[in-house]
Amino acid sequence: MQRYFVEQINIQEKRAVLLPSDAYHVQKVMRMQVKDSVIVCHETEGTFLGKLIKLTPNEAIVELNGKIEENNELPLDVTIAHGLVRREKMEFVIESCVALGAKAYIPIFMNRSTAKWQEEKGEKKEARINKIIKEASEQSHRNRLMKFIKPLTIPELIKEKANFDLCLFAYEDSPTDDVNLKKHLSIDNMKSLLVLFGPEGGFDEKEVEILTEAGFIPITLGKRILRTELAPLLLLSAIVYQKELKA
Amino acid sequence: MQRYFVEQINIQEKRAVLLPSDAYHVQKVMRMQVKDSVIVCHETEGTFLGKLIKLTPNEAIVELNGKIEENNELPLDVTIAHGLVRREKMEFVIESCVALGAKAYIPIFMNRSTAKWQEEKGEKKEARINKIIKEASEQSHRNRLMKFIKPLTIPELIKEKANFDLCLFAYEDSPTDDVNLKKHLSIDNMKSLLVLFGPEGGFDEKEVEILTEAGFIPITLGKRILRTELAPLLLLSAIVYQKELKA
Repeated sequence: MQRYFVEQINIQEKRAVLLPSDAYHVQKVMRMQVKDSVIVCHETEGTFLGKLIKLTPNEAIVELNGKIEENNELPLDVTIAHGLVRREKMEFVIESCVALGAKAYIPIFMNRSTAKWQEEKGEKKEARINKIIKEASEQSHRNRLMKFIKPLTIPELIKEKANFDLCLFAYEDSPTDDVNLKKHLSIDNMKSLLVLFGPEGGFDEKEVEILTEAGFIPITLGKRILRTELAPLLLLSAIVYQKELKA
Repeated sequence: MQRYFVEQINIQEKRAVLLPSDAYHVQKVMRMQVKDSVIVCHETEGTFLGKLIKLTPNEAIVELNGKIEENNELPLDVTIAHGLVRREKMEFVIESCVALGAKAYIPIFMNRSTAKWQEEKGEKKEARINKIIKEASEQSHRNRLMKFIKPLTIPELIKEKANFDLCLFAYEDSPTDDVNLKKHLSIDNMKSLLVLFGPEGGFDEKEVEILTEAGFIPITLGKRILRTELAPLLLLSAIVYQKELKA
């Protein structure tokens, strides 16, 4: 069933208001009518079964008929930090991270990033990215929206370390053999994980040094060289496999 | 180090001839010169360290200085069968399957495939796909080329079943709870695995029936809905995690 994330919900009155763009989508793309059913998701209130009760060109109001006891979220909060890559790649990775259940995505300014993040265009970019996240969340049947966090530098990212149970970085040239993703993922009471991936050119030595000093642990993701957009997908897939699929 | 798959190799004379397109690549893109080192891969002979000894506009000859004992291949032969999707998607999936270590990729004519495979253009398409596979194999440091197999129908695919230790299909609406990928992947002496993925619209009921009767086993890949191009990547990533990463 078609699902929409909403910003306005009123549980007492059992009503939700779709975003104007979704009022258009539900009528013009989905060709739904009053009395048709939709699923409504709200970040804090939960996921509801709903019925369209009012449709005008700019408005769609849904009557909520009870919560759906559904949890399609990953059992581990995973934040993907990713060396800034150019727009199309970033958008592809973001869309895929949503479908694979990531909690948050942060672009990171890294020495070998060739892509730019222009501040004056930042707000427009963020709005575009959040639209992609919302649509991908609806299509993949998420219950929560992945968070997009504005680009950080590596020192800024390191300051966030205390918010995570474990911080890793995917580094194929790791000097140690202690790069055991399986060991890290089998920690049972881990609630939150941050993993940093390099941009196209990878990490430079200085970055590896700073990260290691700060307590970030290098991991490898197998024997083959992965493109920067594929590595986060492999990691998230391994987490789906390890943490979500039944044993 | 830059690696090239070659078709012509002579172990006795310790020489390999790069493809004409690679003779161009090595000189014009990589700007290499005589005496520079490259890695040479041959499907049956193996992987060699080599040195460029002759360069002309159309020819590059490499002297082979011994085999490299390297095995970047997945420890399990995985064939991805995938409902025919449109060209850009197929090429993206193929490129990713190469990097994740798949042994073969077969497009499958399925009831809900909207993409077409025009026979008269088939040969040109195959040449293009094999070029993508070769380049992706070189970039991801494979030792063997993934095989591209011409599109099959589901009955034709079913006839291949005896060539695999296990045949699965990724079906989110599986009627049973016996959809345990972990159980299947933990079979230790398994050598070859075939997994079929639906096109955009997924499987239709008739296909599910035929496959199940033929002994194909349905699996799920987590709680979220995955786009057709992401599902094979999750499966292969889970295999890298389970079979290749050290415990």
